Amino acid sequence: MANCLVAQSGGPTSVINATVAGVVKANQLNPIYDTVYGGLHGIEGILQEMFVDLTHMSEDENKVLRQTPSSALGSCRYKLKRENVKDFERLFEVMEKYDIETLFYTGGNDSMDTVYALSEYAQKNGITNRRFVGCPKTVDNDLMVTDHCPGFASAAKFIATTAAQTWLDSTVYTRQDVFILETMGRDAGWLAASACVSGNVDVLVLPEIAFDKEAFLATVKKHIDEKNKCYIVVSEGVRYADGTYLAAGESKNDLFGHAVLGGAGSALREMILEAGISERAKVQDLANAQRSHAVGQSLVDVEESFKLGMSAHMRSADKSFSGKMVGVKRVEGDKYDVEFFATDASNVANHVKNFPTEWALPDFAGISQEAIDYIAPLLVGEPVVLYDERGLPRHVVPYYMR
Amino acid sequence: MANCLVAQSGGPTSVINATVAGVVKANQLNPIYDTVYGGLHGIEGILQEMFVDLTHMSEDENKVLRQTPSSALGSCRYKLKRENVKDFERLFEVMEKYDIETLFYTGGNDSMDTVYALSEYAQKNGITNRRFVGCPKTVDNDLMVTDHCPGFASAAKFIATTAAQTWLDSTVYTRQDVFILETMGRDAGWLAASACVSGNVDVLVLPEIAFDKEAFLATVKKHIDEKNKCYIVVSEGVRYADGTYLAAGESKNDLFGHAVLGGAGSALREMILEAGISERAKVQDLANAQRSHAVGQSLVDVEESFKLGMSAHMRSADKSFSGKMVGVKRVEGDKYDVEFFATDASNVANHVKNFPTEWALPDFAGISQEAIDYIAPLLVGEPVVLYDERGLPRHVVPYYMR
Repeated sequence: MANCLVAQSGGPTSVINATVAGVVKANQLNPIYDTVYGGLHGIEGILQEMFVDLTHMSEDENKVLRQTPSSALGSCRYKLKRENVKDFERLFEVMEKYDIETLFYTGGNDSMDTVYALSEYAQKNGITNRRFVGCPKTVDNDLMVTDHCPGFASAAKFIATTAAQTWLDSTVYTRQDVFILETMGRDAGWLAASACVSGNVDVLVLPEIAFDKEAFLATVKKHIDEKNKCYIVVSEGVRYADGTYLAAGESKNDLFGHAVLGGAGSALREMILEAGISERAKVQDLANAQRSHAVGQSLVDVEESFKLGMSAHMRSADKSFSGKMVGVKRVEGDKYDVEFFATDASNVANHVKNFPTEWALPDFAGISQEAIDYIAPLLVGEPVVLYDERGLPRHVVPYYMR
Repeated sequence: MANCLVAQSGGPTSVINATVAGVVKANQLNPIYDTVYGGLHGIEGILQEMFVDLTHMSEDENKVLRQTPSSALGSCRYKLKRENVKDFERLFEVMEKYDIETLFYTGGNDSMDTVYALSEYAQKNGITNRRFVGCPKTVDNDLMVTDHCPGFASAAKFIATTAAQTWLDSTVYTRQDVFILETMGRDAGWLAASACVSGNVDVLVLPEIAFDKEAFLATVKKHIDEKNKCYIVVSEGVRYADGTYLAAGESKNDLFGHAVLGGAGSALREMILEAGISERAKVQDLANAQRSHAVGQSLVDVEESFKLGMSAHMRSADKSFSGKMVGVKRVEGDKYDVEFFATDASNVANHVKNFPTEWALPDFAGISQEAIDYIAPLLVGEPVVLYDERGLPRHVVPYYMR
């Protein structure tokens, strides 16, 4: 028997580790591979043979891994470029050295392009004993074909809960108050939209809709005039019709020259204060906590992420199963349910699924019932969390630190 | 039989409503008052007779109230001033009109001063049938005499959990990374210190210790040199030896001219980038979420807060019980336990209990074992949270919105 390798890429989510746990568990239930390797730091570490052996993970470790947020195998932003043939050669060399038949790669659309590129390379070069399988994960929920992405629902639940709870906090005084909650979402507004499930959002500002400052200020003023309060949710990636980000004037570049996002909330606050619409405006940027928070996750999300890893493993018993991503399809019916299916990774690679603008109500008024019906079932249920003696949730020590 | 009134003041916490629920429940178990009124927006609303009747609250509502963060009765920043005799006269007039024998007031040291001032006024004026009882609450944990304050532990647990989980998030890449977590705490460092229970804090910056920029940068550099990463926790109220806040240069004033805190994390980020110690530094300001977050609260905290309300109610059967605050005292022994007791509100009013500097390790290295032994037992246990069909925790509709 040959071996398999599972690795993680891109930004962390709170359930990405559950997919790894699923691959490991499936192989324990039906050992179609001798060894299940974990590759550290994605492709970057695989090229350097940074492996750990996950084959005999205990049930306790598996459970704790499922409730550990972030990427326990480490991650990378390294992108395999098709013109960089040496990387491809090196990768197949490493796979041969460790007799790795299947690489399971969890990630977003960049990672699905990696799966696509590697399977394409194998095919073109007549390599038939190496397979590449993608497992979607992204809090942004912006992958095509799959109904939704593991990781999204738990982040959405944290955001909607925080919206409900900070809204309570923001209304206790009789004074005028504007509260602005900033979420992740560079191109897709799924996370910001999710806050509306709380029922407490007065104004929603999505990246899919060109920002109209006058209309925005008029809407905020209307709420302040009516009830002296306004609760706003904004996605970090909001921009004007000309494509400039809301916070572009203030945004700092890091030393590599990448634009650093964030600051959309502060930009809105400045606008509101300058226009004299409110005397006070408070900003809460959920930053990394929204993708890392793993207490009160969505049970649907954690379970689907785990099952997706199992499904990917089980499907890979088919020797022709390569260049595929395993996705979830919502089943028609009264009760929420999904089926798992496979699609060509090329259908997903480098595409973005935006929040449908027809699901956004006019005048920043939130989202339609259809949108709520899409999001709310994903948030249902809470896993039983295992705690330690300090009263904190148990986490595995990241494999890249062992 | 006469009536009682319970009201809330100051900043919200995630368990302040449990104290109200405790007062209501105690009166249902032993109705020493005909009516339990809830006063809306603290003293400010009481002066305007803004009351709701809580006497016959259902068990379901009581349970949901206990898990609803923020102040369900509304809050105020209004401070009764002793020289403002009209306010005192008006308040006793309102109490007489509604036949209110006892006012239970939850809050911080300002609120305990209100309890003190009102009971003092009654005594001086020979009024024997009006009593005033304080119930402590503050996420800042800065009240004297009581071992700790309801509200602190749940905020501390959220902060320590977020520290553990964003630390995981901040270490997944091989690149250099600095992560800065900013907590509340204008004068007292209890909340920032709590992050250290996670075991993941490299550098802790407390408001009790004058900030030394050179020493701070040297410490961050040491961590970066050692492991290419540095996880920093800072309290919003950190200041230099001359008393200026870290972010003073950047701090914006609101229209009333109050200094707006926050920004200590950003100030540290700027220092680190300017000194060239790291190429990247990310800031997460926990802002209002840290006091509002009510999923995975501390069970110890919720239960103590509820019992404290019951204890206050039960003690008020004694007609001489006035000008008191009910506190918690930790019992000696292997297992964490507390007793409730009463102290004169004057012992608590207008004082601040800082985080003991002898519990801070030198060179920003975190907190001592003694400090962890004080904090960790407060974080233990999680209440069973009731959820709705959207997958979000159930909350009561604030009484000030009904």
